[in-house]
Amino acid sequence: MRIALDAMGGDYAPSVNIEGAVETVGENDSIDIILVGNETLLRQELRNRRYDSSRITVEHASQVIEMHEPPTTALRKKKDSSIRIGIDLVKAGKADAFVSAGHSGVVMATSLLLLGPSKGVFRPAIATIMPTLKDTFVLLDAGANVDCKPENLLQFGLMGSTYCKFILGKPNPTVALLSIGEEDTKGNELTKEAFKLLRATSLNFIGNIEGKDMFTGKADVIVCDGFIGNVALKISEGLAETILKMLKREISSVSTGRIGYLMMKPAIRNFKKRTDYDEYGGAPLLGINGTCIISHGRSTSKAIKNALRVAEDFSAKRVYEAIAAEIESEISGRAA
Amino acid sequence: MRIALDAMGGDYAPSVNIEGAVETVGENDSIDIILVGNETLLRQELRNRRYDSSRITVEHASQVIEMHEPPTTALRKKKDSSIRIGIDLVKAGKADAFVSAGHSGVVMATSLLLLGPSKGVFRPAIATIMPTLKDTFVLLDAGANVDCKPENLLQFGLMGSTYCKFILGKPNPTVALLSIGEEDTKGNELTKEAFKLLRATSLNFIGNIEGKDMFTGKADVIVCDGFIGNVALKISEGLAETILKMLKREISSVSTGRIGYLMMKPAIRNFKKRTDYDEYGGAPLLGINGTCIISHGRSTSKAIKNALRVAEDFSAKRVYEAIAAEIESEISGRAA
Repeated sequence: MRIALDAMGGDYAPSVNIEGAVETVGENDSIDIILVGNETLLRQELRNRRYDSSRITVEHASQVIEMHEPPTTALRKKKDSSIRIGIDLVKAGKADAFVSAGHSGVVMATSLLLLGPSKGVFRPAIATIMPTLKDTFVLLDAGANVDCKPENLLQFGLMGSTYCKFILGKPNPTVALLSIGEEDTKGNELTKEAFKLLRATSLNFIGNIEGKDMFTGKADVIVCDGFIGNVALKISEGLAETILKMLKREISSVSTGRIGYLMMKPAIRNFKKRTDYDEYGGAPLLGINGTCIISHGRSTSKAIKNALRVAEDFSAKRVYEAIAAEIESEISGRAA
Repeated sequence: MRIALDAMGGDYAPSVNIEGAVETVGENDSIDIILVGNETLLRQELRNRRYDSSRITVEHASQVIEMHEPPTTALRKKKDSSIRIGIDLVKAGKADAFVSAGHSGVVMATSLLLLGPSKGVFRPAIATIMPTLKDTFVLLDAGANVDCKPENLLQFGLMGSTYCKFILGKPNPTVALLSIGEEDTKGNELTKEAFKLLRATSLNFIGNIEGKDMFTGKADVIVCDGFIGNVALKISEGLAETILKMLKREISSVSTGRIGYLMMKPAIRNFKKRTDYDEYGGAPLLGINGTCIISHGRSTSKAIKNALRVAEDFSAKRVYEAIAAEIESEISGRAA
């Protein structure tokens, strides 16, 4: 399988991207990588590394999208960006998947433009995997669509459920709607309408879920608009870091605490690993005609490596085709 | 000062409410309490407790609002609810403030109906105090308004800043808008418009803040709509609990962990205290002609006690008058 990797996207690009690519081909025989970005720069970075040069190739792209650029401007003005060239490779059949830690809005807009949405899908969504007390859940949309209609949330439920079946291996995933109360009547205009639509599907819909139950494992798939999803995701990341810092500070102010902390260190390391974004690596764009994986802007080489692994899994299992089939069957079910 | 307390509101009512009232008059000479609720039930509960009966009185209310009732129905059908009677006492000048751990939407709607909004205020908001790495910040709206306009967020900024000055004693609080990126261009339709309005005020507006920075102490006041605010609040509560549980589990699976945990226990207790909702007690309704404090549905007697303390402070400092003055000055400033 060949995966196109945006070598210029992310806070630590291109070095961690290249590092992740080199490690991946070293460990995984089934993935070859096309690094997309400034060829001179990339060749220079590659010079000091040992890797099988038949399995990592370079595709030149002269432009880089900056994080502050509005997607529409970026799309119009930067037709030779690493994101555009990478997705073009997927479109042309020269790559099976695309991975980027760059501007998620631009990845979304470009893949919509070049690959198109899956049949029947109004708006693709970013699906993120997060840890719970039991195992993991899928949160979507994690930031692709900041203003949504009820029909979008309905489709996020259908797409998230299919993704959860194929990638997390849960045969009948529970789907919940993120809201401000468990009762059917709680929510804002958007979620109240979406609630009715989700209830009318064949999904294993368990109703509203409150923020406090997000991490308890009550639902396998949690649906919300992309603004809330992104805020929720970042609060969780920030709070986990803050809590560890607060705990450390409290500990160092208590006499027996320091030695206790040392004894607990292996446990804290395990905990960090469980809640570490890098472990989950990449969030797929669901509802696109192809495989596009978005990785965190702060991605390390480990995160890039895991994103490449997710891309391989997603593409091999042909998840985007299953999603198109699920949406299609829901539409024909409602028409019948 | 006399405070009307909704004795029927909250998951553990009326016992924790009465407990909180009895403890308050025992510790605080300046607060007398009017318990509002089913008189027979309350007198029965009070019978076994020791307190100064001249300082805790009972006001009968025959109805209780359940958590699942839509505010409009509750308002129309339950004119003798503990919430309505309690707020009526404030309106009649028989109480200086009202505290409830009941249905926040009904408290909001009833106080709007009976006391009215402060002059110039479109929609009152619930302001919650939360801990950061440094000290605390104010989040608003925490759930009163699930669908907002940009002008509402502008006013939340003005009201939150005034509250922060008076109650947290910060002379020039920083105000930020919760969004999905720090750049001015990031956000949804609502926040992008609100950003422009907030920037044009005399507030110490520092722009967008991301979820990951909510708890780092970057901003003294964080503004968002009530749906997101409520989700954010509950995610934070839930995640803090989950993280402690995950840590405990990791610890018990590591051989040196158990003894380490015992040595760290005082630190974990301090941490819990810092992040415990009960410590902060009550969230005021800002933008109402009077003092109404909303306490958590899961309030313990400690939370009720702290909510009564917040009510006293809020009323004594005449914060609602200061808020009306702030909104008025902003309006006249824009007209000039």
